[in-house]
Amino acid sequence: MDQEHLNNLRHSCAHLLAASVRSIWPSAQNAIGPSIEDGFYQDFDMGEVKISEEDFEKIENKMREVLKTWDTFAIQEVPVAQAKKDFAWNIYKSELIDEFAMQGKMITETKQGEFLDLCKGGHLEHPKDEIKHFKLMSVAGAYWRGSEKNKMLTRIYGTCFPTKDELQKHLTMLEEAKMRDHKKLGKELDLFTFSESVGKGLPLWTEKGATIRRELERFIVDEELRRGYLHVRTPDIAKLDLYKKSGHYPHYKDSMYAPIKIDDEEFMLRPMTCPHHFELYLRKPHSYRELPVRIAELAQLYRYEQSGELSGLQRVRAFCLADAHIICASEEQAVAEVGKALDLIEYIAGVFGLVHGTEYWYRLSLGDRSNSEKYYKNDAGWEKAEDLLRKHLTARGSRFVEAPGEAAFYGPKVDIQMKNVNGKEDTAFTVQYDLCMPERFDLKYNAEDGTEKRAVVVHRSSIGAIERIMAFLIEHYAGAFPVWLSPVQVMLAPVSEKHVDGAKKLLEEFQRAGIRAAMDDADESIGKKVRNAAKQKIPYIVVVGDRELEGGEWTIRVRGVEEQLKMVKNEFIEKVKAEIRERR
Amino acid sequence: MDQEHLNNLRHSCAHLLAASVRSIWPSAQNAIGPSIEDGFYQDFDMGEVKISEEDFEKIENKMREVLKTWDTFAIQEVPVAQAKKDFAWNIYKSELIDEFAMQGKMITETKQGEFLDLCKGGHLEHPKDEIKHFKLMSVAGAYWRGSEKNKMLTRIYGTCFPTKDELQKHLTMLEEAKMRDHKKLGKELDLFTFSESVGKGLPLWTEKGATIRRELERFIVDEELRRGYLHVRTPDIAKLDLYKKSGHYPHYKDSMYAPIKIDDEEFMLRPMTCPHHFELYLRKPHSYRELPVRIAELAQLYRYEQSGELSGLQRVRAFCLADAHIICASEEQAVAEVGKALDLIEYIAGVFGLVHGTEYWYRLSLGDRSNSEKYYKNDAGWEKAEDLLRKHLTARGSRFVEAPGEAAFYGPKVDIQMKNVNGKEDTAFTVQYDLCMPERFDLKYNAEDGTEKRAVVVHRSSIGAIERIMAFLIEHYAGAFPVWLSPVQVMLAPVSEKHVDGAKKLLEEFQRAGIRAAMDDADESIGKKVRNAAKQKIPYIVVVGDRELEGGEWTIRVRGVEEQLKMVKNEFIEKVKAEIRERR
Repeated sequence: MDQEHLNNLRHSCAHLLAASVRSIWPSAQNAIGPSIEDGFYQDFDMGEVKISEEDFEKIENKMREVLKTWDTFAIQEVPVAQAKKDFAWNIYKSELIDEFAMQGKMITETKQGEFLDLCKGGHLEHPKDEIKHFKLMSVAGAYWRGSEKNKMLTRIYGTCFPTKDELQKHLTMLEEAKMRDHKKLGKELDLFTFSESVGKGLPLWTEKGATIRRELERFIVDEELRRGYLHVRTPDIAKLDLYKKSGHYPHYKDSMYAPIKIDDEEFMLRPMTCPHHFELYLRKPHSYRELPVRIAELAQLYRYEQSGELSGLQRVRAFCLADAHIICASEEQAVAEVGKALDLIEYIAGVFGLVHGTEYWYRLSLGDRSNSEKYYKNDAGWEKAEDLLRKHLTARGSRFVEAPGEAAFYGPKVDIQMKNVNGKEDTAFTVQYDLCMPERFDLKYNAEDGTEKRAVVVHRSSIGAIERIMAFLIEHYAGAFPVWLSPVQVMLAPVSEKHVDGAKKLLEEFQRAGIRAAMDDADESIGKKVRNAAKQKIPYIVVVGDRELEGGEWTIRVRGVEEQLKMVKNEFIEKVKAEIRERR
Repeated sequence: MDQEHLNNLRHSCAHLLAASVRSIWPSAQNAIGPSIEDGFYQDFDMGEVKISEEDFEKIENKMREVLKTWDTFAIQEVPVAQAKKDFAWNIYKSELIDEFAMQGKMITETKQGEFLDLCKGGHLEHPKDEIKHFKLMSVAGAYWRGSEKNKMLTRIYGTCFPTKDELQKHLTMLEEAKMRDHKKLGKELDLFTFSESVGKGLPLWTEKGATIRRELERFIVDEELRRGYLHVRTPDIAKLDLYKKSGHYPHYKDSMYAPIKIDDEEFMLRPMTCPHHFELYLRKPHSYRELPVRIAELAQLYRYEQSGELSGLQRVRAFCLADAHIICASEEQAVAEVGKALDLIEYIAGVFGLVHGTEYWYRLSLGDRSNSEKYYKNDAGWEKAEDLLRKHLTARGSRFVEAPGEAAFYGPKVDIQMKNVNGKEDTAFTVQYDLCMPERFDLKYNAEDGTEKRAVVVHRSSIGAIERIMAFLIEHYAGAFPVWLSPVQVMLAPVSEKHVDGAKKLLEEFQRAGIRAAMDDADESIGKKVRNAAKQKIPYIVVVGDRELEGGEWTIRVRGVEEQLKMVKNEFIEKVKAEIRERR
């Protein structure tokens, strides 16, 4: 089924919902009801009536009953006066009719069975036969036309699929996504929190969440150092002038926070790292022998997000980007560096068990020569860069799609696209080719022939924003992090008071071995301790009793596995150390 | 010689300088000339004359000549009219005379030899015999009375000591301090830089400086984790309300930057971490069994400094503090935690080779019961906390001094005092006892008896601000960092083109062993390569020739040591690895 037909199916189902709610509560006024990505919604002014999920069964039954009379969607153009009369009882439709009339638009009514609605079209031809597999999902408040100046209406979300299988698959995915939701798991596993006094979109990381971050950050920094990146540190604020010089200001102004006046100068929370790295590059002359110079940083960045857009770690107002800018001697060197950046990304994705082509893929995001307001003007440069990138992606045999109009303002880019647990596609990381900054910042190097030449720049992220990759990984692993990332790797649970001292010695032994071990010496039954550790998704649980302290074979509970491990202490310590070392 | 006598010596010497300059340039008008920490200065309006350091010898000779006639300082009170007449030629003295007269102060003149000056006293009795060991140091511009609205005068700095030895020691120290100056070495060793476009007081760390930072940061984080600290991450901005709640705002307002408006709320660049950590503590209830909870963070902080006060890494506008807040169950537990924090500090100081009692010592900074504007009001609390801290410091046998009126507004503290290479005392780190925040933030825990009890808080830094400790360490080591901190630990210098490939293989072998090695394959003589590496203060230089590549015994140049190391490759690699591991 193509997307248009699917949209028609869902939009038709929204009409059906409107008709059914009005049939149960005749005073309800239906407002708009469009199809959306995973289904549809329908808004209502319910007057005094409060609708909750408990009403869904009743409404769904009514929908099935009403549907029997819906052979077709009969759509017809009507004069304004007629429409006004037909919808005099509905203030929302009346408002829309007045507006359409003012704009000179046609007024179209649609009638199915007994139900008359105002609609411009986009329906099924045979609703009775096609609307079969639908489900109401949730109910929420929504302002009429999205403005908080207007009345708050009741919005009912639903979904509809062509087949029972597809509907069931979707519901299962939602169920799974709900279980994996990083906001829910973040709270349950005590990884991060928010504080009303600190502010929205500004996560506070607990020791457990910060441990995972630290492991990720050290992993990426060490891996980048190994690959010849120079890790630097630059300030999180800078003069507004710097962003005017880089040309970011007009393009990113709406994402930036207001300036802070210090003495007579205006400073900005930085929304990106590029100009800082260029200033650092400019501190001294560079020879062609040094290039490419790969300047990397775990950079704290600040971008404005509307408070309604903020969501857990996924959309935040301050984040830490694993960023880098590679100053290259030629276009060819730049494209080779794009390739090396993709190699690094593929390596990292492999560590997380992500498979190229299915779990992530590349998107070649292109510019638009006709839009010189959105894109830096240099037609020949864009042509060449896009062509080189296309050839490179083809040569490496990577699955990629092309996306016109998705480039950065300074050049084309390769986006690494992923689907999250909700099935939504998103750009996880990005490698960008920069046609513009080398000129703006006058980035040069001394060429082999003794002349000064203009450099070419690649911007890239390896692991993206730490906050976003954390959101992704929490959901990817459903909170059951691999051993190397687990905040607590081994839980020691002494059987009774008399085993606590021995367990404490074991704890120190594990910690000296570089293992994040913890001990649960609470006054609880051993069953309770094991359940608590399992709830915290700790990879290994060792119940410490007489046998364990006497040095015999241990029985170790392994997360998610029925069968228990049997090994002596030193063997177990070596096993865990190897898993940490090999990032398993 | 006591401080008062030393001040008199130097102030007398300033008079001598005034007399001598006037003797050489009769149109010069001498303004003020006080003694200062390491000597004295004397301001002059020199009219059209420009004085430079090249004139110092001439002036010093004149001083010795004039001094012969200075048997004593004859000081006498004179009527205003007389003083006005005597100093009619000097607009600065005239201005002072008018002011003293208005304030009803006495006018005192002093006469030595032929030289008449206006001065309230503080001189030697026998200048001719006592002023012997002086030296003019530098010349600078200085506004009359420190206001840029006034005329810029010429300020000559000098120093004077009772003995030749003391003068010589001081000059040697200054010479040494100049060589060790972190701003100078930071540039020479390419550790950090500043950018006019980014802004004053905001250092940009190169890959070399950032390497040292990273080593320091990982060292301190790992050591704190080992000692039971919970490392967290909290946002660098927060709502203004948070600092009002903590009570910091009125006390720190002048050190904070202007608020940033986001939607309808005001956010601040955070000047401290405490309220963030308290908010994190408050996310869940805590049992007495968990306490003390040691919340630590490498926290980015922002404090306003006037642009004239900014100096290299020593005084910056943004810095990263190794901060922690320890939530304790009782006053006794809090004092025990102060002790553990001092243990940690002593351990770190030991790693840097600093000796307690000589290179650093403790200062018990006390409150002032009579000043309830500056200090949180809780007399009994202050008494008890100060007493516990005093007893603790005495019990641990630490050298400490007491400093009334140096406490934080929320409680007494133990400051770790150090002298920098200029001989100036400064607070390096601080451990603070907090009487106030537990109440402001309602920090509680569930006590053993089932009741809720108020917690006690200790604030502490282990290594201080990374920027300041870096400034200190650069000067402490004179840029010759120990192996574990050196940005490049081993430099490989291939003898000729044909040794480059072999050297490259060695480079990779060193890097795989976790050693920061680099290769100098420039087209230069081996002598030049060795000199360059030595200038960069790299601990080990290996000249890679046939013998080195054939696997025989190596000859390794060791920084600062005449004799070269002789060992085979693997032995050398193990030696360097051990030095890194043991932080040598």
